[in-house]
Amino acid sequence: MKNINIKELACELKLSVSTISKALHDSHEISEHTKRRVQETAARLNYVPNPYASSLRGRKSKNIGVVIPEVADSFFSLAINGIESVAKENGYHVLICLTHESFENEKTILKEFQGRRVDGVLLSVSRETSKSDHINELISNGVPVVFFDRVCDEVQTAKITTDDFESSYKATEHLIHQGCDKIAFLGISKTLSISNKRLEGYLKALKEYKIKADRKHILLCTDDTKQNYLLIKKLLQQVNSPNGIVASVEKLTTPVYKACVSMKLKIPEDIKVVCFSNLETASILSPSLTTITQPAFEMGRSAAKLLFKALQKTNFNLNEGSLVIPSALVVRGSTSKAKKGMPVFSKPVLQ
Amino acid sequence: MKNINIKELACELKLSVSTISKALHDSHEISEHTKRRVQETAARLNYVPNPYASSLRGRKSKNIGVVIPEVADSFFSLAINGIESVAKENGYHVLICLTHESFENEKTILKEFQGRRVDGVLLSVSRETSKSDHINELISNGVPVVFFDRVCDEVQTAKITTDDFESSYKATEHLIHQGCDKIAFLGISKTLSISNKRLEGYLKALKEYKIKADRKHILLCTDDTKQNYLLIKKLLQQVNSPNGIVASVEKLTTPVYKACVSMKLKIPEDIKVVCFSNLETASILSPSLTTITQPAFEMGRSAAKLLFKALQKTNFNLNEGSLVIPSALVVRGSTSKAKKGMPVFSKPVLQ
Repeated sequence: MKNINIKELACELKLSVSTISKALHDSHEISEHTKRRVQETAARLNYVPNPYASSLRGRKSKNIGVVIPEVADSFFSLAINGIESVAKENGYHVLICLTHESFENEKTILKEFQGRRVDGVLLSVSRETSKSDHINELISNGVPVVFFDRVCDEVQTAKITTDDFESSYKATEHLIHQGCDKIAFLGISKTLSISNKRLEGYLKALKEYKIKADRKHILLCTDDTKQNYLLIKKLLQQVNSPNGIVASVEKLTTPVYKACVSMKLKIPEDIKVVCFSNLETASILSPSLTTITQPAFEMGRSAAKLLFKALQKTNFNLNEGSLVIPSALVVRGSTSKAKKGMPVFSKPVLQ
Repeated sequence: MKNINIKELACELKLSVSTISKALHDSHEISEHTKRRVQETAARLNYVPNPYASSLRGRKSKNIGVVIPEVADSFFSLAINGIESVAKENGYHVLICLTHESFENEKTILKEFQGRRVDGVLLSVSRETSKSDHINELISNGVPVVFFDRVCDEVQTAKITTDDFESSYKATEHLIHQGCDKIAFLGISKTLSISNKRLEGYLKALKEYKIKADRKHILLCTDDTKQNYLLIKKLLQQVNSPNGIVASVEKLTTPVYKACVSMKLKIPEDIKVVCFSNLETASILSPSLTTITQPAFEMGRSAAKLLFKALQKTNFNLNEGSLVIPSALVVRGSTSKAKKGMPVFSKPVLQ
């Protein structure tokens, strides 16, 4: 069925376009009877409001934009679910755009969003992003922005993060308690807020336990799984090769496990691994993976709630909304203390 | 920097709004010199075309919509990468919307897209979708639609699919060759095209190998991992419990593995498992997982290419563009022939 426009709807009902418009916007000038008549006919004849025309008259798009680096990471797919749950409650659509970790893509997407396609934006910046002009520009154009997970400190708005520094400290300390004294750190960016905090937490733990940090044990990974596999293999081939690994993002799990297999290193006997990850399969890996599990759904939900608060109340100050939701260390087989030569029964944990 | 509108740009250049508009649309009426002047000033002063106003004048949104059930499935995250690669080549943005497997959500999203927010749509329907009026309506409103993976047969447009019937036949046959004679099938929908084809392929293989299909071995799973875990556990508790499983979607992997652990069933000694899955972690699971791996990236790319062909050539008939790209059976530890009581060295496969 073809949809009809407001003129055709007015013609059908023998009312003026302005009356139809007022009725659809629930104006007090129009009687309840007429409102009902208009709404019923609009539904029957498949009337679709033209969002462009509405927007020109200053109305809302009823869309929010979610700008994230990728969806292959479980953190983001869970965060999206949290965001969508709030959007639905508010009668909004969610438009998801991916930067694929490129600063240029991020700029283009935010520029596109300046054209009032969306009423607000939830943003987790790309790993290349070190400037924030494009974000400030969007905000100064009247589109509120709330950060989640990956933030730009210098932008004055709400930031929903997790305790990256403390989690990384906890992960490193756990490896030390399990007997590791040569611990590598795998990062993905020199500029990204979360990467730096995770690196700092790792360094702090080493320092407190009087373990000298070795620059050769700090690896900057790429966006390519195969290349990461080769980089990690090279790390494991060093003379002073590590017996523990803190991997700062989920996607490093597979290359770490594969590099260990290829080097004939057994996890956890020869090397213990902990990974920042929300992988559902963490507990059924061989061996099951010790993770820093982030409150992804809650972070998405909190960020969206704040954004809607800002959209509903013009005097709401987003600066006051920032929130830190803690992550959890979930200990599994990959950091178990089993002695070398003994089989590890890394029974999947049911949770 | 605040962006400026076309009036301000015209004022700055001391030209009429109509000249600016023609220059920006590369009209032959305007000299190359003026065009360059306008373009340079537009860039310098951060002119953003108002997409709503442009659209009212019949211009393109330069957006395509991707409507999919979820992003937690690796198939979809890989397909999105394929789609984005083509969109980028064409200077288009990709707006991703999730139905969360709900028919109601799917209808609302397509209705929203009727308002000319997008120039075309790539669609993989929800598992609840059994009618197609909402899709035909979008198409009859001038928004071309190309299906990928999950299609509605009765809609006259291009469909990019994989060989679901053959793959499922191959998966079931593989289990039979590995010694299974009581094979269960885990589906997710009674109406979904891919689900039905996968079920048919499974039934065909049983029939050809003269194995009687057992209705109790055909399970309809839900959208909830915990509930699926309980359903699968119940399946495994039957008197005539299966010694092989064909899981028709990726998300069933974890509940299958966990249910086996909880029932003290060893994979592959007591029960063998093959799953339709593009999980990157398939090769590092305990044991590594035999999969039907779908050409997700290629399917996304092919679907997007067809959509852009339709957007560029008005006389292009999308009906002629359908394509079937074959999946691959990747054999790993979960279907190995190891005898009961013997340890299985399910060495992760490097690929």
